[in-house]
Amino acid sequence: MAAASRARRLDPQSQITVYEASKYVSYSMCGIPYYISGLVSDLSKLVAYSPEQFKSERRIDVLTQARVISAEAGARKLRFAAAGGEREQEYDVLILATGAKPWVPGIDGILLPGVHTVRQLEDAEAIRSKAEKAEKVVIVGAGYSGLELSESFRSLGKDVTVLESLPRPMENLDPDMSELVTRELIANGVKVAFNTKVTAIEGKDNVERVLTEGEPYPADLVIMATGVRPDVDLARMLGVEMGTTGAIKVDERTRTNVEGVLAAGDNVEVRHLVTGKPAYIPLAQTANKMGFVAGANAAGKEAKFLGVVGSAVTKVFDLEIGRTGLTVQEAGKSGLRALGVTISSTTRAHYDPDSKKIWVRLNFEEGSQRLLGGQVLGQEGVWGRTSVLSMALHSKSALTDLLFSDMPYAPPFGPVWDPLVTASRVGLR
Amino acid sequence: MAAASRARRLDPQSQITVYEASKYVSYSMCGIPYYISGLVSDLSKLVAYSPEQFKSERRIDVLTQARVISAEAGARKLRFAAAGGEREQEYDVLILATGAKPWVPGIDGILLPGVHTVRQLEDAEAIRSKAEKAEKVVIVGAGYSGLELSESFRSLGKDVTVLESLPRPMENLDPDMSELVTRELIANGVKVAFNTKVTAIEGKDNVERVLTEGEPYPADLVIMATGVRPDVDLARMLGVEMGTTGAIKVDERTRTNVEGVLAAGDNVEVRHLVTGKPAYIPLAQTANKMGFVAGANAAGKEAKFLGVVGSAVTKVFDLEIGRTGLTVQEAGKSGLRALGVTISSTTRAHYDPDSKKIWVRLNFEEGSQRLLGGQVLGQEGVWGRTSVLSMALHSKSALTDLLFSDMPYAPPFGPVWDPLVTASRVGLR
Repeated sequence: MAAASRARRLDPQSQITVYEASKYVSYSMCGIPYYISGLVSDLSKLVAYSPEQFKSERRIDVLTQARVISAEAGARKLRFAAAGGEREQEYDVLILATGAKPWVPGIDGILLPGVHTVRQLEDAEAIRSKAEKAEKVVIVGAGYSGLELSESFRSLGKDVTVLESLPRPMENLDPDMSELVTRELIANGVKVAFNTKVTAIEGKDNVERVLTEGEPYPADLVIMATGVRPDVDLARMLGVEMGTTGAIKVDERTRTNVEGVLAAGDNVEVRHLVTGKPAYIPLAQTANKMGFVAGANAAGKEAKFLGVVGSAVTKVFDLEIGRTGLTVQEAGKSGLRALGVTISSTTRAHYDPDSKKIWVRLNFEEGSQRLLGGQVLGQEGVWGRTSVLSMALHSKSALTDLLFSDMPYAPPFGPVWDPLVTASRVGLR
Repeated sequence: MAAASRARRLDPQSQITVYEASKYVSYSMCGIPYYISGLVSDLSKLVAYSPEQFKSERRIDVLTQARVISAEAGARKLRFAAAGGEREQEYDVLILATGAKPWVPGIDGILLPGVHTVRQLEDAEAIRSKAEKAEKVVIVGAGYSGLELSESFRSLGKDVTVLESLPRPMENLDPDMSELVTRELIANGVKVAFNTKVTAIEGKDNVERVLTEGEPYPADLVIMATGVRPDVDLARMLGVEMGTTGAIKVDERTRTNVEGVLAAGDNVEVRHLVTGKPAYIPLAQTANKMGFVAGANAAGKEAKFLGVVGSAVTKVFDLEIGRTGLTVQEAGKSGLRALGVTISSTTRAHYDPDSKKIWVRLNFEEGSQRLLGGQVLGQEGVWGRTSVLSMALHSKSALTDLLFSDMPYAPPFGPVWDPLVTASRVGLR
């Protein structure tokens, strides 16, 4: 929808049609945990614009429950199935914005009622309704999604267990920061089991238990938060080339190798500006911005999406968690020698009674002291500091640039030596 | 104290002595409004380290109530007055960290009891004690200090009037942002009078009224928040050169023109990295960092302070106010042609019931679209966004860089199109 909207703004004449397999467009996937918890009362609130609004306000035709089943690059034609059967449509420019789909392990019982993935609003509806009667919820996967949902279900008073095959939650944090997440989960009554691989799911009419290599976990609701894969079926059909990550490869103008076919969103790989290499990091904001760029290019303008630095943020119970750039491990995989430093500080001046604790970790290149990544965890002030680190990564800053950057100071917003400044100073030592 | 501490860390051997005219060192001037309001219960909480701690933990000799009265650059000697009379001290390196002193207009009645400036902890003590009986408080000056204090006195239930000779509060904001501040003041029961020049202060044993070119304002406590001037008396005595701003001129290593004399803090001018010109912007964080650099250079290391981008933040009642870089007017004075754009947005996803309103103003250079400055006002999320803009100014970003910067997103921290991104997009249009 970002692409369609941008194209419309830049080109008032063209005909723009959007095909969407589900019932909804322009909805916030990231809002689903807050609908499940009840913080967001109504599913419709997660929808920013309805198909009718796109039609009346932007003259964009949106066909929902319309699935594109095939496309022909040479003839610039696609075929879609909708109410009333299959039809064909010609196009001048096709933007593939098929996004990602949940990936789940191919284990026994994965299709049992009560086992859900979370991606679309339909999933949210089904889970919220199931959750009413559920007592024991098992979440498989301790990434953003899994952990946000653990909070949703705890706030509904459920017994919640998170199972994770890796040794710790959020593997895109360095281990010491990950440990803070584990503590927060436990402090909020979430049961966690790491190094725990799910082998099967059992039940009769509904899920009853999750089997692992160790003990079984009773469950009447199971959420598979085991990640996503790019949805590239249609792209393959068109002869679109994939990148090394398995997602669609595009140039800076979001063009695929196929004439007339652009691609944007969670189905596309991006350039990681810290490593210079392709990466698959499907996130809402990146998807929107790529869409914005694709829309401009579709409308005949020149726009570029250069890449990302790997920023992400979430909130799990009272802990805000931000990360950007590379962990030490990720740096190593890209052939960079990284050192890390972690400090703890406060979110306000020491004499402010509302001051909270905050942790900052900075990873930097040995020798050059170029910043490679950072993580910020605390009860407040995390988004801003993570964003500052992203900006520092964009401009290839070294620790000393961060130390002497002119972030504003006042007692309600931090100590006079901001936690980021303190971390830089300790790193430089 | 930042300079002394840094020198000690880098040079364990040297003898380090600090002369301080007041009773306190290492205190937070910025915390004074919170002591006056009672949020900070005890004055001692505003002191980060005592002279005794400096002695025992860092082997730094701190002489309080010791005023340096003269110095001789050639002989590298200074003379100070303390309990027990005047004495002399030789030095190898002298760091001038004399700071700033309040400036007040030379009007009749300025020395009356009940008329105060706010700079040192002694001022804070005196004001808090006076405030107990005061009913009508008049604050002269609508800059940071004056407005923060208006909140302090309102929270004590006082009748508060702010008088300002300029047409609006906070002249380092663009007018539309300034207007939001005015609204916040009025909504919180502060009486404001702009374009109002104070001509005299009257009273018998205590202040009774403030006279202006228009009506008189009854007062039993008057705060002169009319700005500061660099304290350069000692510097002049030493033959230290001043810059165009009237503050001490130093090079990147904080060296003055006089051999063996460094200077750091609110007595020194800095380079504004957006204009490239000298500026006098006395702020706590800058002062600390310059001290850090001066201490390193005093210890024989090479350290540089390159400059600032003009960042500042404050909170007035429920409104957080951040600014960085240049206003359109400031840009004009520096020969830059600036355009500005202001948008309003929300601090969280639209469906989050705790979402608050936020305003972003971006000023950018006509043609190049290089970011020149920005202001962020709102009930939350202001520090972070202002800091992002500072980082963008440090790296000389254009609007398009900001638009495509990878700030992290999650519903509790902003809409998927962050207010900064929206503002960049609108600016580019």
